[in-house]
Amino acid sequence: MRIGMFALLACGLCWGQTNSECKPSSLNIPGAPYPCVHPDRSVTFRVSAPDAQKVQIRLGGAHDMTKGADGLWMVTIPPQVVGFHYYSIVVDGSVTSDPATRTFFGSGWDNSGIEIPEPDADAAYYSAKDVPHGQVSQRWYYSRVTGKWRRCYVYTPPDYDASSRNRYPVLYLLHGWGENEQGWHIQGHVDFIMDNLIAEKKAKPMLVVMDNLNAVKPGEDASLYAARGIIARATMADVAPAGGGRGTPPAGGRGTPVAGARGGFPTNWGGVFTDMMFSDLIPMVERTYRVLPGRENRAMAGLSMGGMQSFLTVLGNLDKFAYLGGFSGSSGGRGGFDPKTSNNGVFADAAAFNKKIRVLFLGIGSVEGPGTKTFSEDLTKAGIKNVYFESPGTAHEWLTWRRCLNDFAPRLFK
Amino acid sequence: MRIGMFALLACGLCWGQTNSECKPSSLNIPGAPYPCVHPDRSVTFRVSAPDAQKVQIRLGGAHDMTKGADGLWMVTIPPQVVGFHYYSIVVDGSVTSDPATRTFFGSGWDNSGIEIPEPDADAAYYSAKDVPHGQVSQRWYYSRVTGKWRRCYVYTPPDYDASSRNRYPVLYLLHGWGENEQGWHIQGHVDFIMDNLIAEKKAKPMLVVMDNLNAVKPGEDASLYAARGIIARATMADVAPAGGGRGTPPAGGRGTPVAGARGGFPTNWGGVFTDMMFSDLIPMVERTYRVLPGRENRAMAGLSMGGMQSFLTVLGNLDKFAYLGGFSGSSGGRGGFDPKTSNNGVFADAAAFNKKIRVLFLGIGSVEGPGTKTFSEDLTKAGIKNVYFESPGTAHEWLTWRRCLNDFAPRLFK
Repeated sequence: MRIGMFALLACGLCWGQTNSECKPSSLNIPGAPYPCVHPDRSVTFRVSAPDAQKVQIRLGGAHDMTKGADGLWMVTIPPQVVGFHYYSIVVDGSVTSDPATRTFFGSGWDNSGIEIPEPDADAAYYSAKDVPHGQVSQRWYYSRVTGKWRRCYVYTPPDYDASSRNRYPVLYLLHGWGENEQGWHIQGHVDFIMDNLIAEKKAKPMLVVMDNLNAVKPGEDASLYAARGIIARATMADVAPAGGGRGTPPAGGRGTPVAGARGGFPTNWGGVFTDMMFSDLIPMVERTYRVLPGRENRAMAGLSMGGMQSFLTVLGNLDKFAYLGGFSGSSGGRGGFDPKTSNNGVFADAAAFNKKIRVLFLGIGSVEGPGTKTFSEDLTKAGIKNVYFESPGTAHEWLTWRRCLNDFAPRLFK
Repeated sequence: MRIGMFALLACGLCWGQTNSECKPSSLNIPGAPYPCVHPDRSVTFRVSAPDAQKVQIRLGGAHDMTKGADGLWMVTIPPQVVGFHYYSIVVDGSVTSDPATRTFFGSGWDNSGIEIPEPDADAAYYSAKDVPHGQVSQRWYYSRVTGKWRRCYVYTPPDYDASSRNRYPVLYLLHGWGENEQGWHIQGHVDFIMDNLIAEKKAKPMLVVMDNLNAVKPGEDASLYAARGIIARATMADVAPAGGGRGTPPAGGRGTPVAGARGGFPTNWGGVFTDMMFSDLIPMVERTYRVLPGRENRAMAGLSMGGMQSFLTVLGNLDKFAYLGGFSGSSGGRGGFDPKTSNNGVFADAAAFNKKIRVLFLGIGSVEGPGTKTFSEDLTKAGIKNVYFESPGTAHEWLTWRRCLNDFAPRLFK
């Protein structure tokens, strides 16, 4: 904590003014000097709350702010891990976003976000470069399975519009719990990652389809399902609004916890999404875009809960996919793996499985714990070929998942 | 106010529970029952702020909330005008967004938003229907004029991908002060409006290019320019954070007012954008998409400050556009119009002007005051053909601008 303490003391010198060494986060609203990131990656926040008794920043944990003579609250928090982090402010018990930053949908609401910059060279793969650029398109389509209009985003590679005949393989890529179909192109920089990989000929040109993993059948209460599947933990927080750390949703404006939700998810979650994907999403994509047909040209991956959904969908439908990725989320890692029975026995015949799934990718941040590595080792012992990727020094956060995609995409469709 | 008073009293009955007559706003986060809109269009808000002394909703004006026994603050405010409204909450003097709603970039920051629904029939033109759908694409491009990567969004009509040979005219469409290039496809529903018009054969299939009206030259301080051009009024609010009504930006995290900014805008605003448009944006669009060349196939319009920018750009470059629209914003309406000298004399030769500009469109909400109507009448007196469109019962807000686009787009490229 010595570095953090030093930063805290050092900030006394810059009280009420911008320290030129402290760079505004790239996610701030235009013109906002705070939050800013110091060279040692400590972060100074400033919030206006003239009549408040207590103001905190919640990033990793709760950090008390101090009110200055000008009525503005400030705090400098210890050095942070590089990458994208959700955070919130707490003003006299009210958990909300910091108006000085853009907001990002995570944990079921629009959190503030901060980007702790990496050295330019490390960040290059997810930054805009002078290479041909693809585009990310917002696409609305009607789902017969859910009885509702749905929105997905589709990355098309740089040469998609120029060549009117080329057909492309497709990666279906999912966000995580409490996020939505915008996560990958806003927090994830999917377009820059793919543009750069394609320009360097590391990855094949492909479409990336990013949908919302929430899906309920007609007549089901969508908000009820949301409370069960997506904001179950949020509703727990409703009961104890003062608790929780980073990304904890605020109380107020939520339903009550739903009986029957176990571990945050209803027992039947994921099935409706799989049905929707095969009945509505994939047919829409294959009807609308110039894509290559068949399982050899179809991959699915996701982060966290989206990784769990990808394993659920693909392992139950090996005739439809040849590539599978879980970024900080899969079907394993929680112990009790038995190749004969786990996942309905899909791993029982290793040779048959290896013939079907050409790449099975398991990515994780090194700070996230050993579960995924154990799962990878269990699979290897059972003869299941897989790729284990570990992002050094990152946790359950978007930088881990950007790195996962950057490692995963070049392995596809080859 | 009688209706508002009644709603306020009636809410005593629904205190602490969701009134089934009160429908959650369509812009709430998943599962959030508040804010909700009553049948008379009064609105009930709920905010969790257990330790606060004073909590307000700012929508039109400031509305004090009352703390219930459960620690949640509530208020029901008088009936609101239909359409989209930005709003914010104030917790012990801290102006921020309501965590129960999605946020929307306006007034330079991510406000909360609420949609006061119209009758279904009135809202149909900007709602998803079972018609062919186009898409809105996020497009990054490098600007030599600004020396930076820029992002725009491009609507392509439903048949764009299916027909690999068709070429299309282009409408360049701008957001307003404090908003950004996402405003038209998020708050404005540009895709549904165009999809529906095209399906009914009311409008020609066209591209709609939505860029960000902020542009600074390399070496200029972007945040300084933002403070001058875009958040000038925000920085005023910084000085007096307790004042202001709807959409007032919060204090904190902003620079100080910049000397030389008059009326919120620097005297030279708009010129860099015009240069950028001709040097970078239009060439990128015409190189990247299958568009028709020439002024007859180019229109420009915008709302509020974006309308002012459109008039500035088009009236100075009649050789490049044949259609011009201002939605609650143009070059006139502030008195002193003289056809011989105003706008550098572009209106002096009415016959020549009418030959160049095939549609000059002036739209306004009926609640916004008489300036635009006066400007239209002045133009008519001077022999300048123009279309005056008035949105009944709406103010300076997105419903006015959806209606403007719905009336303007069918007039283009015919």
